[in-house]
Amino acid sequence: MAVIGLTPRQEKIAEMVRTLGPITGEQIAERLNVTRAALRPDLAILVMSGMVEARPKVGYYYTGKNAMNIFVEKISRIKVQDVQSVPVVVTSGTSVYDAVVTMFLEDVGSVFVVEPGGILAGVVSRKDMLKVAMGGGDLQKMPVKVVMTPMPKIIVTTPEESVLTAAKKIIDNEVDSLPVVSPASQPGAKTYEVVGRLTKTNIARLFVELGEGKGGERL
Amino acid sequence: MAVIGLTPRQEKIAEMVRTLGPITGEQIAERLNVTRAALRPDLAILVMSGMVEARPKVGYYYTGKNAMNIFVEKISRIKVQDVQSVPVVVTSGTSVYDAVVTMFLEDVGSVFVVEPGGILAGVVSRKDMLKVAMGGGDLQKMPVKVVMTPMPKIIVTTPEESVLTAAKKIIDNEVDSLPVVSPASQPGAKTYEVVGRLTKTNIARLFVELGEGKGGERL
Repeated sequence: MAVIGLTPRQEKIAEMVRTLGPITGEQIAERLNVTRAALRPDLAILVMSGMVEARPKVGYYYTGKNAMNIFVEKISRIKVQDVQSVPVVVTSGTSVYDAVVTMFLEDVGSVFVVEPGGILAGVVSRKDMLKVAMGGGDLQKMPVKVVMTPMPKIIVTTPEESVLTAAKKIIDNEVDSLPVVSPASQPGAKTYEVVGRLTKTNIARLFVELGEGKGGERL
Repeated sequence: MAVIGLTPRQEKIAEMVRTLGPITGEQIAERLNVTRAALRPDLAILVMSGMVEARPKVGYYYTGKNAMNIFVEKISRIKVQDVQSVPVVVTSGTSVYDAVVTMFLEDVGSVFVVEPGGILAGVVSRKDMLKVAMGGGDLQKMPVKVVMTPMPKIIVTTPEESVLTAAKKIIDNEVDSLPVVSPASQPGAKTYEVVGRLTKTNIARLFVELGEGKGGERL
């Protein structure tokens, strides 16, 4: 892939095709007051880039594709499994107190609650924990399952999903992280096995990598 | 700007110039078993893209620039002020309890503690609050300033800083948000006035916008 800075004349032609297209090479040449031959290299660049297409007997028309679209296409190919973190889990019998301790020891903002076999049962965030801690009950006696967001209300992602789609889930549902799951082996039951954790930190780190040009190998 | 998918031959030439350059057009033609004239359009594309440069009497050499670099340059131009949120502040005399209530009412992960005039004094996160709430003191009597991260330990950003640099600060310092500040008017004192809040959510939202092609107007 190559990125080419368009010349002012090429920009002008692209704009002309966008607003007036379909338009013939002769018409463009006339408007720019140049010969048809002089335009040939400019039109070739615009056609090669995909911004403009030529249709015989019709003329040039605008496709709407541009540099951004192509980058977008590449970003969409980065998968959750390329950036995800290791999940931090507790069992559903764990006390709120012990779950908070796990949260601090592992320094994570969310802990996943699982049943035997790693089956996802719930998610608890720092926000959930802070709310219950302010309530002032005995956190050592309170099981984490009374404060967790339980299945099937949990928003999840999969290793193969695009990071972009998963990031959109995080933003739209206003959550800090998503459990990365794979369908569990229990036949019939709609259960998930937790295999990872996708957080806003993973997204921010990917943004920094892409912005520093280090994400090249991901594209 | 136009993005052009390179042909296999153009990719081959770029790779040849990268590994063997400086290399003359004749040498490239010979290795590919084509005429010098046949190569001209391919070399023109590579030179226009900036990937390859031609030096008289030396030949073609590789510049290391590519599509990624140019995108990076554009991302670097997005500023903190283009994506920041409104800051949520409490005064330093506020109790921990009231600061937590503010955190829940405003649904934010961090609250900034300010002195009169909006001067930044500290930052408290959900994590700080959870730690003190687990400690079990009387949160209504405890002032927020005893649990906040105080100046000058706070990592800050400014409206004019690039989002990329600010995102890197968030990742490197393992914080959830940065106060966006402008130098305060008190002469001499190294103080900051809080004017905004940059969070991982802002970064994730920008990533989604760019990935959906909606960030075009930011570029």
